[in-house]
Amino acid sequence: MNNFELYNPVNYIFGRGQIAKLAEVTPKNTKILLAYGGGSIFKNGVYDQVKTALAGYDCIEFGGIEPNPRYETLMKAVELIRAENIGFVLAIGGGSVIDGVKFISAAVNYPGDAIEILKQRILFKDASVCVPFGTVLTLPATGSEMNSGAVVTIDATQEKLTLGGSALFPKFSIVDPTVIASLPKRQLQNGVVDAFTHVMEQYLTYPHDAQLQDRIAESILQTLIEISPSVVENPTDYKLASNFVWSATMALNGLIQKGVPSDWATHMIGHELTALYEIDHARTLAIIGPNLYRVMFETKKEKLAQYGQRVWNLTGTPDEIAKAAIDKTVNFFHTMGMKTRISENAENIEGTADFIVQRFEERGWLGLGERQNVTLEKVREIVTLSY
Amino acid sequence: MNNFELYNPVNYIFGRGQIAKLAEVTPKNTKILLAYGGGSIFKNGVYDQVKTALAGYDCIEFGGIEPNPRYETLMKAVELIRAENIGFVLAIGGGSVIDGVKFISAAVNYPGDAIEILKQRILFKDASVCVPFGTVLTLPATGSEMNSGAVVTIDATQEKLTLGGSALFPKFSIVDPTVIASLPKRQLQNGVVDAFTHVMEQYLTYPHDAQLQDRIAESILQTLIEISPSVVENPTDYKLASNFVWSATMALNGLIQKGVPSDWATHMIGHELTALYEIDHARTLAIIGPNLYRVMFETKKEKLAQYGQRVWNLTGTPDEIAKAAIDKTVNFFHTMGMKTRISENAENIEGTADFIVQRFEERGWLGLGERQNVTLEKVREIVTLSY
Repeated sequence: MNNFELYNPVNYIFGRGQIAKLAEVTPKNTKILLAYGGGSIFKNGVYDQVKTALAGYDCIEFGGIEPNPRYETLMKAVELIRAENIGFVLAIGGGSVIDGVKFISAAVNYPGDAIEILKQRILFKDASVCVPFGTVLTLPATGSEMNSGAVVTIDATQEKLTLGGSALFPKFSIVDPTVIASLPKRQLQNGVVDAFTHVMEQYLTYPHDAQLQDRIAESILQTLIEISPSVVENPTDYKLASNFVWSATMALNGLIQKGVPSDWATHMIGHELTALYEIDHARTLAIIGPNLYRVMFETKKEKLAQYGQRVWNLTGTPDEIAKAAIDKTVNFFHTMGMKTRISENAENIEGTADFIVQRFEERGWLGLGERQNVTLEKVREIVTLSY
Repeated sequence: MNNFELYNPVNYIFGRGQIAKLAEVTPKNTKILLAYGGGSIFKNGVYDQVKTALAGYDCIEFGGIEPNPRYETLMKAVELIRAENIGFVLAIGGGSVIDGVKFISAAVNYPGDAIEILKQRILFKDASVCVPFGTVLTLPATGSEMNSGAVVTIDATQEKLTLGGSALFPKFSIVDPTVIASLPKRQLQNGVVDAFTHVMEQYLTYPHDAQLQDRIAESILQTLIEISPSVVENPTDYKLASNFVWSATMALNGLIQKGVPSDWATHMIGHELTALYEIDHARTLAIIGPNLYRVMFETKKEKLAQYGQRVWNLTGTPDEIAKAAIDKTVNFFHTMGMKTRISENAENIEGTADFIVQRFEERGWLGLGERQNVTLEKVREIVTLSY
């Protein structure tokens, strides 16, 4: 097992009716920025629950944070916080809103040009220079409610870049699984595939000594496989909803990555497809993931065999199980409504592989994945196989 | 799934050579109390590593914290901290030392008679009234390094009582799995059984909706079963040691209890056997646990069947699997060197059941367990079956 540090101070408040607890955990005597997205919170009742809980608080609102939140949009919130001397931000939304608020939290007091945070991957470890924030989760998928990472898109250059650091954990996250009842089926399906792929990025590498982490990763995969076909049809079923939402958090709250190698090449390549064609994040993962497993088969076949055997109960030779496990994964993504080719999700896609390879080359990303052996040639192969 | 709050701010630092990180995480500009037990840290090199890491710190030492730490002993440390104006405590040891330091942390500024903390089960939520502390773990078993609970014995009345609250999390815990290399086999075996039973207390209740928590609990049990026979023989094997130590932490760091019912009757009864006869804590669990499952079979048989099927790969009717699962558990405890009858661990045991029942009655503990249906009559039956 690799050495690791596990530090996650988020006060994670889970269950029915828990939004009312906002009044217990939101700091008083400071202005609060309510940050949200396109307005679904006005339709699903979450906005009303928040306002009721925060009656008497001095709240200022900032709506319109997009899916794949834009640096340009977020900087407007940064200006508002500076102008109004706001002391706490409440992110109300899914991963995009929460990721956006993490950037905002870091940018307000950043001494230089805030675009450096993304371009230079600045790590934030000193919480005293960040604006504290909490979250009310409305869309399970990214785990952002219980981690300290974020992804932000720079509109001007069509780049999707990451930021993070231990100063960027939410102070609290309120997670009421009943909020998923009003989500469109497509968003539920995306959430399942996103959470599933988060686990795969941290699990599907090579055999190692961290037996318990492997089993916990497999537990999340098994739970998602078991509940997902039903939860996307019946999101009002609390048993299904609560297991889904909790699994999505556990998929990326840092626990299963401790002590193990991780991959993340699927995300790195997928981000480019979103930046280029606005393909939903989860759908890019469903396109790239299985083709990455195919192209990197020799590297990943032992772990693919373990995955096939333990998660899908497959039998056969290790190579047979490993190959069948990829097919099972694709089938699972299809049952989640994914279209697993780029050409099924976007038009005029010629040159995509060249473009992505060139981008990675410019950034010096010459070897991705758990062994840094997803070279630019492999990236080209994976993307081409995904056309 | 039941509503829950997950809050665990411990900075958990795991791996080889990590004791050197003490210098990064221990506060400067205050006196440090080094609290430890019977002196094994002088033999296994941990003391030297700590002193090297804390060169230049103003350290005062307090040794002699017993297994099943005594209120009377701990109060001497409390007096020392008050007299010397000490601002931080470093617990160097296993669960007894760490539990003892949690009591010390709470007692120093407690306004009343500190024995009330135990007798009245005072809950500590305000960290500002507790003395902050960190830990260097030397004996994996209790999970105390990553939770906020503790058990302390009052010598005068032979009572083993609990305390806790979110103010009593360690600020950090440094967990180097190589420290188990020098542990006596008996302590390793005890650690395995203690960790295993911690999982059982939170898992072996009745069927519920929290699918992922069940699977994570089963993951810990499976890992312990897989590695334990080898790790007690070869504690210098890092693969085995690291999985054991991490499993013991995960067994009781709060995660698997979130959203689920829990039992703890085995611990409540077992504590009395330790208080009465000084039987090792883990050994009391090995005595009581399986007999509790037998006496409460009708209540627990569905979960016993799930446990038997998933963890022990048993087949048959649910009742057959459930019964065989208890036998498997006893056999596993025997392979860990446990003697599973009270009479094999103590002498002159007549009247034990009467005594324990009377104690529980005096304390108003009329119904224990996940359904509060472990009545005093059931307690009598469980203890008698354990003679």
